Amino acid sequence: MRKPRLMTPGPANVPEDVLLELARPVIHHRSAEAKQVIVEVTDGLKEVFQTQNDVLILTASGTGAMEAAAVNTVPPGGKALVLSAGHFAARWGNICKAHGINAVILETEWGQPVDPDQVALALRQHPDTVCVMGTLSETSTGTGHPVEAIGRVVAATPAVFAVDGISGVGAMECRTDEWGIDLLCVGSQKALMLPPGLAFLSVSPKAWAKIDAFESRSFYFNLKVARKKAKEFDTPFTPAHTLILALRASLRRIKEEGIEGIWQRHRRMSEACQAGVQALGLELFSARPAEGLTAFRVPAGLKDTDIRNKLTERFGITTVGGQDKLKGKIVRIGHLGYTDEIDVVATLAALEMALAELGHDVEPGCAVAAAQQVLMGQRTAAAVG
Amino acid sequence: MRKPRLMTPGPANVPEDVLLELARPVIHHRSAEAKQVIVEVTDGLKEVFQTQNDVLILTASGTGAMEAAAVNTVPPGGKALVLSAGHFAARWGNICKAHGINAVILETEWGQPVDPDQVALALRQHPDTVCVMGTLSETSTGTGHPVEAIGRVVAATPAVFAVDGISGVGAMECRTDEWGIDLLCVGSQKALMLPPGLAFLSVSPKAWAKIDAFESRSFYFNLKVARKKAKEFDTPFTPAHTLILALRASLRRIKEEGIEGIWQRHRRMSEACQAGVQALGLELFSARPAEGLTAFRVPAGLKDTDIRNKLTERFGITTVGGQDKLKGKIVRIGHLGYTDEIDVVATLAALEMALAELGHDVEPGCAVAAAQQVLMGQRTAAAVG
Repeated sequence: MRKPRLMTPGPANVPEDVLLELARPVIHHRSAEAKQVIVEVTDGLKEVFQTQNDVLILTASGTGAMEAAAVNTVPPGGKALVLSAGHFAARWGNICKAHGINAVILETEWGQPVDPDQVALALRQHPDTVCVMGTLSETSTGTGHPVEAIGRVVAATPAVFAVDGISGVGAMECRTDEWGIDLLCVGSQKALMLPPGLAFLSVSPKAWAKIDAFESRSFYFNLKVARKKAKEFDTPFTPAHTLILALRASLRRIKEEGIEGIWQRHRRMSEACQAGVQALGLELFSARPAEGLTAFRVPAGLKDTDIRNKLTERFGITTVGGQDKLKGKIVRIGHLGYTDEIDVVATLAALEMALAELGHDVEPGCAVAAAQQVLMGQRTAAAVG
Repeated sequence: MRKPRLMTPGPANVPEDVLLELARPVIHHRSAEAKQVIVEVTDGLKEVFQTQNDVLILTASGTGAMEAAAVNTVPPGGKALVLSAGHFAARWGNICKAHGINAVILETEWGQPVDPDQVALALRQHPDTVCVMGTLSETSTGTGHPVEAIGRVVAATPAVFAVDGISGVGAMECRTDEWGIDLLCVGSQKALMLPPGLAFLSVSPKAWAKIDAFESRSFYFNLKVARKKAKEFDTPFTPAHTLILALRASLRRIKEEGIEGIWQRHRRMSEACQAGVQALGLELFSARPAEGLTAFRVPAGLKDTDIRNKLTERFGITTVGGQDKLKGKIVRIGHLGYTDEIDVVATLAALEMALAELGHDVEPGCAVAAAQQVLMGQRTAAAVG
């Protein structure tokens, strides 16, 4: 028997009661019942995002929300500042390129957090920047960026701040309004505990002013039309309605736990996982780890696939490797959404055994013990870097 | 008790076993298992579409596939011929407008089929047309267009033929390759018997040549990237993977019944519904009814909402009214996908009672009898128009 355990940074586990919502007979998406669902989930998303701004529901992958944010906010030839520090941040640049947006790329070494002072400097050099495009949690490197501090910098300029919160929101603290995030992009398949298929986008009044200033070259992702329909608790096109019903169920769970409590749980899981990985003599990849996943460097003498395949074949645990220039160099363990502290401890126990069986020198229980000490408050997270 | 009966032209009923697929635990979308699912569903879709062309899977509403077809095939400033004959055909024009495509609109009266000779004439007048954009089943009017004959006309020109088959494919005969359809757009929530959230697009070599000739201004809907990923049995972005698993289950059902058998079932349901409606003295709206829905004019002295609300309140039956200029003027009964002959007969029985209770002069059983006679082969479908 191999019991499947999804420890990836998205898609992530979906609670059983949320899955069962998906098996309910389809209702018509223009019915009064369907509109009531839109009302409830929009309120719930605002609470998760910590925003009073409009929140729009798109039937798309999270990338669809990123493209919607970019193409509606920056006219062709307009300037965007891309805070590039990983595979997904680089996607902002690719979106800009596809749409003829003049992207200024501020490169940060992968694994390092973006420096708010560098953002301020770039904005002084490029005062005509329309939109700064950043990332809350860079999934490819396991890095959490200082969005609060960057938001303060951007808020003092005419530019708007678009944040890819796809794998971050619901796992890491994110206070959209307080931190000055004008466009927050979120996907369903991460900390929101749903299958993939929905994307969400919050839009501030400052962003609407940019959006209203020109006609965007997008039909499916036209935010002006989406805003109009949202006011009627509707969507421009037939939405992935069963997923919206399931979203209602997952948001009720989130409300019950409370968003602050959820952030704390992810912080604990993250610190425990970091401590465990380090107790095994493994090196964390990121200098500022995100709270929904832990990335560590593949130790000398092993391949990433050795470790990952062993985890899957022996214990049913799915993890992911590195992307692009990190291919083969790191392993990433996801711990977000419907995942608890004991899932992390169990994964560390499996990692110990996998490494030992691969000939790595492992003291059985060492990673588990380090994680337990963090979880019991007997030690703080290991120093990173 | 009010037992819900969804008799709308999408979203349509989903079989119970397909719904249960949605409740399965999420698997990782880059796993070998997930790739195997892509292989199987792509084959199944090719059979339903009757094509050997590439078939791409998009996480979007059907409209996303329409935008993808348009924006990847016609460069900004390029010319498209839009066969406009209803609310959804007009959407092609709106997509063109958003992308700076020069749309020549060939208007056909709503409810009438597009005339292939008019298409030929328009293509002679506009020999620089890059793409002809038409519709298999116009959901807003309940009209089936002569796609086979139009396809012959377009095939003789350098233009490609893009067809919105969202509510048609799987309900009406559609032979993509034989009929010269270069880009076929399909949605999940109609005859494919799934909830909304996925769109499909088949692309012919003639269409790929247009697509490869320029860089499209779309990122999420970039078909060149989708083609590359499809060759690896993958998608560019995280797909709505649970829906793809459910698609596998619905395609297995379709394979078992056989696509020709499914077309015949829809033809029988359509003819039975038309006969029943006409036996009630109601006038069919379309001169060439589509086979997935039946639209009839609201009789004098009644409102569409009187009829539709009565059907819902008394019998749990959901139907839809008219859109745009047909608002209040027609009622549309959907009969596609997971719907059988007896569902149609039952709906006609309910319609008889609803009309009678609204004061309409109805002979009980007349619509049911007319439908039964069609279903038993004792009479042919009533003459239309």
